[in-house]
Amino acid sequence: MVLVSPRNPLNIGAAARAMSNFGFSRLRVVNPYAVAFREARSAVGASAVLEGAEEYATVGESVADCGLVVGTTSLGHRELQHPLRRLEYGARLMRRELGLSPVALLFGSEKYGLANDDLSHCHWLVRIPTRVEHGSMNLGQAVAVTLFELARDSRAAARKPEAVKPAAAGEVERLTAMLLEALEATGYTNPRTAASTEAKVRRLVRRLKLPGRDIEIWLGIFRQILWKLRS
Amino acid sequence: MVLVSPRNPLNIGAAARAMSNFGFSRLRVVNPYAVAFREARSAVGASAVLEGAEEYATVGESVADCGLVVGTTSLGHRELQHPLRRLEYGARLMRRELGLSPVALLFGSEKYGLANDDLSHCHWLVRIPTRVEHGSMNLGQAVAVTLFELARDSRAAARKPEAVKPAAAGEVERLTAMLLEALEATGYTNPRTAASTEAKVRRLVRRLKLPGRDIEIWLGIFRQILWKLRS
Repeated sequence: MVLVSPRNPLNIGAAARAMSNFGFSRLRVVNPYAVAFREARSAVGASAVLEGAEEYATVGESVADCGLVVGTTSLGHRELQHPLRRLEYGARLMRRELGLSPVALLFGSEKYGLANDDLSHCHWLVRIPTRVEHGSMNLGQAVAVTLFELARDSRAAARKPEAVKPAAAGEVERLTAMLLEALEATGYTNPRTAASTEAKVRRLVRRLKLPGRDIEIWLGIFRQILWKLRS
Repeated sequence: MVLVSPRNPLNIGAAARAMSNFGFSRLRVVNPYAVAFREARSAVGASAVLEGAEEYATVGESVADCGLVVGTTSLGHRELQHPLRRLEYGARLMRRELGLSPVALLFGSEKYGLANDDLSHCHWLVRIPTRVEHGSMNLGQAVAVTLFELARDSRAAARKPEAVKPAAAGEVERLTAMLLEALEATGYTNPRTAASTEAKVRRLVRRLKLPGRDIEIWLGIFRQILWKLRS
């Protein structure tokens, strides 16, 4: 990852922290304003990334060993001469390229982003899909989102819900019976409509989708309520 | 989005900025340490989100109108009593629920995360898939990553590459001929092996996958080179 002309050491530290969070280790810094950036306290847990950061005078030197150079930009702040890809798609292309050669991911300064001269070193650009009305992100946050997308596992998103073992019908019916007993004891049930109430309450309890592991707790609670109602 | 006991107004502002970037507007703050958080300068472009933030004394009150309450946590810092879902999958479930009722997304304090009492208000928990060795993220970055995932468009990731109109074979051959002429003029070509060189160069040029829109520029460059070589 290459930070070009970053101004705020807090942001350099935050970028290093996000790199460490998502398993990226090679940080390069071109022409930083903050000379003492290696001491940034915002790099919580990521001092190794900062200490190993390499400094370069120009963008060209910083990406010289990379087979693919990708710039980041917020939407529409200038006439772009490059293909501009949404992060979701650009990250997929970068991941594929990573198997072949190092990939450089460039972030510009907090205030101006990447200059046209920096952009000319890029094969294409990527943008985080922010709102058109408020496209500009904080640098540390933009780095975090981009690296998350690179580390993202789309199979995890497609996962099926965990199966929760439901309570067996017999257990649910035991609970229903106790609930009906309590309703009768408290005068909730009108004796004239008792039969239709029973069916209503049975359906009511079934709609809860009670987990099997919780049924004994519920039975215990109603056992206690009934005991108190009768005494 | 609910920030529980946030300490640093910079982080509250950064959270508001990420909300604005990704199109979320309702911020709630429970028991903030920083009384003057509404003035946070880090909320670049998101002052409306901060000004509209609602303050609550307890987590329970802050989520009272929500049909689903999701807590965030970094991996394994305590014994969890809740289902813990990866962000990629949890965000899918949250998006589905958003069609039915408001969803609360809780972030804890920078130092301690959500307390056990806060967690007991949650239906389940979500974690950002950071490295096990360095799971703890900066609050503003964690918010940005989570909201990005909620706003993410998986169809964008599956997109096919843009079709680049290739140069026509006849144009490529014109360029090849000019290159061969230049190679001959400079003495690069050995007359004894000229035939095999020609085939090699023809393949070399085809491997470039020249875009159609660039072919005239390349022809102009070589026209100029040949003119200079001959003069």
